[in-house]
Amino acid sequence: MTPRRLSDQERLAWLRLARTETVGPVAFDHLLNRFGGPQRALDALPELARRGGRAVPPRIPSPAEALAELEAGMRLGARLICACEPDYPGHLAALDPPPPLLWALGRAELLPQPSVAVVGARIASAGGQRFARQLAAQLGQHGHVVVSGMARGVDGAAHEGALPTGTVAVLGGGVDDVYPPEHARLHAQIAAEGCVVSESAPGRRAVAKDFPRRNRIISGLSLGVVVVEAELRSGSLITARLAAEQGRDVFAVPGSPLDPRAKGPNDLIRQGAILCEGVEDVLRALAGSIGVRERERPYDLDPTEDDLDRDALRERLAGLLSPTAVSRDELVRATKAPTAAVMAALVELALAGRAELLPGGMVTEA
Amino acid sequence: MTPRRLSDQERLAWLRLARTETVGPVAFDHLLNRFGGPQRALDALPELARRGGRAVPPRIPSPAEALAELEAGMRLGARLICACEPDYPGHLAALDPPPPLLWALGRAELLPQPSVAVVGARIASAGGQRFARQLAAQLGQHGHVVVSGMARGVDGAAHEGALPTGTVAVLGGGVDDVYPPEHARLHAQIAAEGCVVSESAPGRRAVAKDFPRRNRIISGLSLGVVVVEAELRSGSLITARLAAEQGRDVFAVPGSPLDPRAKGPNDLIRQGAILCEGVEDVLRALAGSIGVRERERPYDLDPTEDDLDRDALRERLAGLLSPTAVSRDELVRATKAPTAAVMAALVELALAGRAELLPGGMVTEA
Repeated sequence: MTPRRLSDQERLAWLRLARTETVGPVAFDHLLNRFGGPQRALDALPELARRGGRAVPPRIPSPAEALAELEAGMRLGARLICACEPDYPGHLAALDPPPPLLWALGRAELLPQPSVAVVGARIASAGGQRFARQLAAQLGQHGHVVVSGMARGVDGAAHEGALPTGTVAVLGGGVDDVYPPEHARLHAQIAAEGCVVSESAPGRRAVAKDFPRRNRIISGLSLGVVVVEAELRSGSLITARLAAEQGRDVFAVPGSPLDPRAKGPNDLIRQGAILCEGVEDVLRALAGSIGVRERERPYDLDPTEDDLDRDALRERLAGLLSPTAVSRDELVRATKAPTAAVMAALVELALAGRAELLPGGMVTEA
Repeated sequence: MTPRRLSDQERLAWLRLARTETVGPVAFDHLLNRFGGPQRALDALPELARRGGRAVPPRIPSPAEALAELEAGMRLGARLICACEPDYPGHLAALDPPPPLLWALGRAELLPQPSVAVVGARIASAGGQRFARQLAAQLGQHGHVVVSGMARGVDGAAHEGALPTGTVAVLGGGVDDVYPPEHARLHAQIAAEGCVVSESAPGRRAVAKDFPRRNRIISGLSLGVVVVEAELRSGSLITARLAAEQGRDVFAVPGSPLDPRAKGPNDLIRQGAILCEGVEDVLRALAGSIGVRERERPYDLDPTEDDLDRDALRERLAGLLSPTAVSRDELVRATKAPTAAVMAALVELALAGRAELLPGGMVTEA
């Protein structure tokens, strides 16, 4: 559908749905498609959760609570951008599902521009930070916005290098969550000259579970992700994996086997990441890349309902779930039910807190 | 044919043919195949060179001169191993063409054993040398002989690491050509506990043009070549290229883009070399490798002669040569002559000093 700006009322409903307990981006996307709008999804939600097996309906924030979040954001000077709106960045909209909303503090016009993420170790070497700073500056000189996570080490150096040309910091907490404390000045500079974005509500302090969503936005905003230094099993490698899943280019800066911070990038190269010794490697690969395919999101679909055997299907699905993730496709095969019916039943289970719907099409027991 | 030990007389003729001016390994291989033995090749040589267009026949060392080389080697305690003999290492015999002979000082029984070359920068970092030493020691513990070039830096460190388990030093000069001077003790240790080999005559000081032949033996003796540190356009990269042409595995140890010595290995990785962070990477690749295919060398072919139009063919070929290398296959296509006739004519041109036959099937104007 054609992107359009929401009315104040729709925006409030959008925010309430996104902030509802047990509604992740997968359920959000599904409910919007199924009911054709956020208010209708909110209206249906208690009944869906009940069907899913939940006695007490999930807590939906009140209009007043959502309004308070909107006002808190506006007091900071931030803007809420919903996934259906024209200024929501196209590369992020291509994700399946996209984050339902973004708070943006600063120059939101940077978000749709061609971007490259530069991420890496918090405890980075001086050389690694110098490399990140220089690479970011050169990417900026070649017209790329540099995206990173404002963490210590490589992230901070990348932002610094790209401050003059344009940089986007993606935070796990709210756009006003200054962390680490020594990046207070950098945060203020990015908010003034670049853009700070977050899926979280203003005022929220980041907790561990916010970072996977943050990392998904870092790669989702970008044509490619460059990993400068990273130990094995680090957040940077998760961002790289997400980037690969999203069809974005993954670059890794090699390092000596004697340096444990080179383990991550070297391992990525072994798995097929593009070896990056400088800006030329990134520019060359992006020039040859087919780009990000935009996803069709028909949020104005006519709602269709077909309750035949839905209860039985839902309980069969619940029985198939375990803490080990299983793909939706596999569940469709196992139940021989229509994809739409399986998805609807899974969302009901998710709303009831019995399933967790992961981006990328995987499902686990909640 | 079945390898066999040469008689003293055959060995002398073999050595004279190998040391004849304008006889490189390609011409040596061809002449041996064509005439069925070194003495018959020597007998035919002046006439072939004359046909090739040379007024004064190429200088063939006298039997006394060849005997002097044999005696000089024996005084050092070294052994001459000819390419047709049973103790000539099989991996080297698989080259097309193999080096006609090898002088070996020390434990020649190491030569046919499974070997890995470890090579790299002469001006190596402390870390690079430590890595090479440790990798060589671990390769040795896993049953591999470590081959290198006894140069400063990485080569020396690799030999040191593998001294207890078995190491082979391949020299550009004679097996007694101790260079660099600070490796005098290492040379003595390798001669005692490992093996020093060379294609050059004992007593010969290495000159620049000896190193390509030396590098070809380093890779030819080995199942794979590990490049630890190397600048672009360095000898180590030539060894790596030769290894790839010989069907051997090429490994490269990555390094930071900030270190110019990492440029060579990083570039190799970009071109498809196996990223090596330690001995596991080498062992894993070699375990999955199909190994080196031995080459059939029918040195006892019946000589065939067919002089029809040979002069015309030879002069047409001479006209096709230039300082830019051209493949023998291309010359066969261009002349539409039988491959054997083209090869015979090229060898005549080479003996006359008008063509240079490079290993790998390429030909240039001499």
